[in-house]
Amino acid sequence: MSPPIDDEPGAPTLAEVAKLAGVSLKTASRAVNGERYVSSATMDKVLHAAAMLGFRPNRLARELRQGSRSSLIGMVVGDLSNPFYARVAGALEKEVGSRGFHLITASTGEDPEAEQRLVEELLERRVAALVLVSTSRSHRYLAAADLRGTPIVFLDRPPVGLLADTVLLDNRAGARMAVEHLISHGHRQIGLIGDLAHISTHQERLRGYVDALTASGIDGWEAYVREDAHDIRTAKNITAAMLAQGRPPTAIFTANSRITIGALNAMNRLHRAPALIGFDDFELSEVLEVSVVAHDMERMGAEGAALVLARLAGGAEETRRVTIPCRIVARGSGEREPRWR
Amino acid sequence: MSPPIDDEPGAPTLAEVAKLAGVSLKTASRAVNGERYVSSATMDKVLHAAAMLGFRPNRLARELRQGSRSSLIGMVVGDLSNPFYARVAGALEKEVGSRGFHLITASTGEDPEAEQRLVEELLERRVAALVLVSTSRSHRYLAAADLRGTPIVFLDRPPVGLLADTVLLDNRAGARMAVEHLISHGHRQIGLIGDLAHISTHQERLRGYVDALTASGIDGWEAYVREDAHDIRTAKNITAAMLAQGRPPTAIFTANSRITIGALNAMNRLHRAPALIGFDDFELSEVLEVSVVAHDMERMGAEGAALVLARLAGGAEETRRVTIPCRIVARGSGEREPRWR
Repeated sequence: MSPPIDDEPGAPTLAEVAKLAGVSLKTASRAVNGERYVSSATMDKVLHAAAMLGFRPNRLARELRQGSRSSLIGMVVGDLSNPFYARVAGALEKEVGSRGFHLITASTGEDPEAEQRLVEELLERRVAALVLVSTSRSHRYLAAADLRGTPIVFLDRPPVGLLADTVLLDNRAGARMAVEHLISHGHRQIGLIGDLAHISTHQERLRGYVDALTASGIDGWEAYVREDAHDIRTAKNITAAMLAQGRPPTAIFTANSRITIGALNAMNRLHRAPALIGFDDFELSEVLEVSVVAHDMERMGAEGAALVLARLAGGAEETRRVTIPCRIVARGSGEREPRWR
Repeated sequence: MSPPIDDEPGAPTLAEVAKLAGVSLKTASRAVNGERYVSSATMDKVLHAAAMLGFRPNRLARELRQGSRSSLIGMVVGDLSNPFYARVAGALEKEVGSRGFHLITASTGEDPEAEQRLVEELLERRVAALVLVSTSRSHRYLAAADLRGTPIVFLDRPPVGLLADTVLLDNRAGARMAVEHLISHGHRQIGLIGDLAHISTHQERLRGYVDALTASGIDGWEAYVREDAHDIRTAKNITAAMLAQGRPPTAIFTANSRITIGALNAMNRLHRAPALIGFDDFELSEVLEVSVVAHDMERMGAEGAALVLARLAGGAEETRRVTIPCRIVARGSGEREPRWR
């Protein structure tokens, strides 16, 4: 295989990468093209040298050499059974579909190893681009694919150890608004029920919760924080246990819509329900008069699609980060006064 | 490429297929292997001859020849943003995952052309098996893939013009039970709000609705049937319009959970709500006391996985059809008496 063609004047060449890495041109070419029979130590050396020099293989030349471009865009998410991601995927699909691309999705079950395997499978099958709602703590494993010019866009959770286009919610500000809203209605014992502790969105929402409480001089909140409520049933059980504890919270902030639904199931038979605000709007929130932190889920998909399509159209601009704002929608549940003081 | 190896004694050979089709062995081999440069007329002749003779290429020999088997199973569904399919996919993924396979999914938006394109993309990328919730009216387009030995399993909607393993709900019986339940509570003007008219599950549920009404000697139901309520917003609008009509129904049967949620949104501000039974259970049905036709969604995924894995393990048994039963869960909304006579 011939080395990548570098046609930008002044752009670093693969020969310079090879020299800096201390390997042959052939080895550098193999590493950059992600071929087998390159040791991971050599791969690391070449990728590091390439990153230092800002080397990028010319994608267009590659595509011309490899034949027609794939029309598939691969999306890997933590949990597709969460309707939030299904809606984001639906909006993304609509946008890329209008440009002749198809979306295929895979779910990792929040398992980082499954994520890496699925990403490898998709890259081997020459997807045109990758969209990730990642569960991994580091994204260095994507460095080779990134270097080879496969556009990679992160949704909902940011990349770690890799520069890439990203679309995030304003999680911390949204959570802070929710808790400030509860405080403004007189609450001081406010529970937080959150998703898996290692997920960045959970961590940001926890930060926003703490921001609001400490700004109001409220302490002792550690007794009201629960994590790892990843599915509706777990969220229901955790809510029930929290409400049964010695000094229960007078209000609860549920940090995503699955947890809100679990909490509603737990609070179903109660005579006096605590105040409740959930992060994420959901389909029956109006019927159930549940106050929420709302945001534009379809916009996350549409912005993600725009970033993918811009990368596929070429151009070497800087990576971009889009942040989607949050707002409080008051429907009744979040405006209940404390009753259990 | 050498022709497929047939090692079952007495099994029809490719030479016999070629002879019956009136083409050369080389052409028959090309057709059976789905190679390019075979006209669709020739392809049809060969596939027809192969079907007549019961010819099957030996999959194991093919895999040995082509290298290792893919670990990806492709699933193509009408609408992944419907949580029903997300849950079915999740259950299927869990089962195939425990055997080392990964699931990738794609959504057609209920567009038959998108389905064919996506299936082709997945087959080109050598998925180990295909799982379809199909929106196509005919599945003859899958005949070549079927013949080449790619396991194809249909979920929720049956194949047309193709024999294949299938898992279905007992849609007609479930719908009949729902409407009989409403009749037993005194209703005679019973509305049906259904999904896209061409989808088989809708047609079966409509049949069950008509079965129950005609068995009780109730006519005039045509004025109470609405179709094409494919999303929540449309279902909400259709329900509101039906309840505003001259002689509104005293009870409504919503033919899937998206429609039920739309109807609940439409009925939200009513002083007197009609009775309501929805097909499919959903997460907030207990909180909202909604009576439903329930079934085991996870079982559909698990049965589908079992059929896929059995095919991948080899064996040439007959195609199988699994039917998942339905049952009524009474929670209040379906037991309301008629008020609007």
